[in-house]
Amino acid sequence: MVKFVDVQNLARWASDTGLETLLVEMAAALEDDFRRWPHFDKTPRVGCHSEHGVIELMPTSDGALYGFKFVNGHPVNSTRGLQTVTAFGALADVDTGYPLMLCEMTLLTALRTAATSAMVARRLAPAGASAMAMIGTGAQSEFQALAFRAVLGIRTLRVFDVDPAAMTKFEANATALGFDVTICADAEEAITGAHVITTCTADKCNATIITDAMFERARSAGGVTGVHINAIGGDCPGKTELDIELVKRATVFVEYPEQSFIEGEIQHLPHDWPITEFWQVLTGDVTGRSTDDEVTVFDSVGFAIEDFTALRFLYGRVEGTDYYESIHLVAEPADPKNLFSLVDAGRPVELSV
Amino acid sequence: MVKFVDVQNLARWASDTGLETLLVEMAAALEDDFRRWPHFDKTPRVGCHSEHGVIELMPTSDGALYGFKFVNGHPVNSTRGLQTVTAFGALADVDTGYPLMLCEMTLLTALRTAATSAMVARRLAPAGASAMAMIGTGAQSEFQALAFRAVLGIRTLRVFDVDPAAMTKFEANATALGFDVTICADAEEAITGAHVITTCTADKCNATIITDAMFERARSAGGVTGVHINAIGGDCPGKTELDIELVKRATVFVEYPEQSFIEGEIQHLPHDWPITEFWQVLTGDVTGRSTDDEVTVFDSVGFAIEDFTALRFLYGRVEGTDYYESIHLVAEPADPKNLFSLVDAGRPVELSV
Repeated sequence: MVKFVDVQNLARWASDTGLETLLVEMAAALEDDFRRWPHFDKTPRVGCHSEHGVIELMPTSDGALYGFKFVNGHPVNSTRGLQTVTAFGALADVDTGYPLMLCEMTLLTALRTAATSAMVARRLAPAGASAMAMIGTGAQSEFQALAFRAVLGIRTLRVFDVDPAAMTKFEANATALGFDVTICADAEEAITGAHVITTCTADKCNATIITDAMFERARSAGGVTGVHINAIGGDCPGKTELDIELVKRATVFVEYPEQSFIEGEIQHLPHDWPITEFWQVLTGDVTGRSTDDEVTVFDSVGFAIEDFTALRFLYGRVEGTDYYESIHLVAEPADPKNLFSLVDAGRPVELSV
Repeated sequence: MVKFVDVQNLARWASDTGLETLLVEMAAALEDDFRRWPHFDKTPRVGCHSEHGVIELMPTSDGALYGFKFVNGHPVNSTRGLQTVTAFGALADVDTGYPLMLCEMTLLTALRTAATSAMVARRLAPAGASAMAMIGTGAQSEFQALAFRAVLGIRTLRVFDVDPAAMTKFEANATALGFDVTICADAEEAITGAHVITTCTADKCNATIITDAMFERARSAGGVTGVHINAIGGDCPGKTELDIELVKRATVFVEYPEQSFIEGEIQHLPHDWPITEFWQVLTGDVTGRSTDDEVTVFDSVGFAIEDFTALRFLYGRVEGTDYYESIHLVAEPADPKNLFSLVDAGRPVELSV
């Protein structure tokens, strides 16, 4: 039998665990897997692009476990009352090839993305960072805010979204969570005075949410020197968020270069552009932030290993609980060579071919 | 809600439909999709190879629907009381990116493989073919036999397997189904007098189940001129079944050359070796069998479009029935930008980071 964690059970597990506890523990699990990065079987995700969006499969394995995620990205969905991103995935045993767990991954992806952002920011954000700008207050925003509070202690948020309703929604949620929230008139106001900038928008286009000139004006006006930009919305060919001039003078960290040069902010840069694979910061092979006044960018597109971590983390937690159901996803004939025994062929029909 | 067809429901659906009816109808659906082959988004499957086997993802789309299959191949499993191949998959809506149906695909793969083999053989087998040799009587064998009877009218089977228990199992099943079954002492005896040869073995190695010399002796002794070889077990790098000399002098038909040159019998041949894409036989662009005494080989490795057909076929059939359950695989917040509303954040915890 395969364990199945549906949306309700995932939400109940996350709520019972406590979101901030969960995000801190998931960030620790992500660090563990990022440290053994070379050990994983890695491939850029396999995408199927259509007019309105993309459907992707993201597989990886550490040699003992195999995980994959099905995920879509359809910015147009927000105008249809549907979610921009939905996902589900599975964990399997490499030795037998049998699936172990199937689960919803819309919520789980929001949690792993937030935990990844915070894990990276803990190493790259300037010391004493206390204020974060959030451009984009959609489905992922509250999870990002909680992860940055849980992992970095950030409680002050300056937010902007082109959709006023999304900002109102965020303000209500985040205020109830105890954040100090400032609704801003535009992106420039939001980033003024922020030590960390999270861009989390969903348009499928090469947007320029933050121009290089705007960034410099805001940094100067806010009296801020070092800034860390957590750029998570540029994650698809033809979908970026930052002025390329800003990216070019920042120190850029990525997950997996082969995928980031296709999908990330750096898709506009030559493939020999100097970037750093973040896992090497954790292993100590390379330096993270070098100076207090440096501008760092985590050009995050989301990589399969992050989903793998989320899947193995969840799998380890649900064993022995009632957060899953057992489903018949794998045929289990008594004699494995007698698969035919599972069907009833006692109803032959005469056919005219 | 997403439709979920588990093993029990798939088996019940197949049994209630009648296996031969189902195989004939699925073969027709496969023909429909093979005829519009250029229309599909195609990519070689994404494999994760390990010591004992492989786990693969097989996605494709026709622009309206998207399907993928998770499938493993672990020959060693048969010694562990486990199945060599297990699978599950999903169908999604390209326009929204939302999954529509999740289902078991171990049984469904056996059905689609058999239907594909028979669909191809109907075009390539010599006229009047009445006897089939089957080398390998494992999990797929009964489905193959039924498909060839339903689609080509073949009722005489000459079988061999290195595992006597698997032959006994097959003999019992096939005899009950009304086939005329001859158990043979070796592969050469099995193929003697056969117009169609189905090789369906599972060893992960470059085996030579049929040598070129053996084939010629059997053809001559059996008084057979034209032969169609349905080679379905060679489906992985380093896993083939036929003597390459036999393949070289046959007319070879494949599903998708980019994948077949990696995984099929033709993995040992240069990539400019003349082969025919089978879909072109259906569209009339190329000839199938040219002469009565020709040796044709369907070097089948299994392609994503076949799984897509099986998924869309099943999806069309289960609507309005009780062959599926509805599951919460996709998070559905009332406000799609308020994913956070699904979790209960009313349990804040104080953390020391």
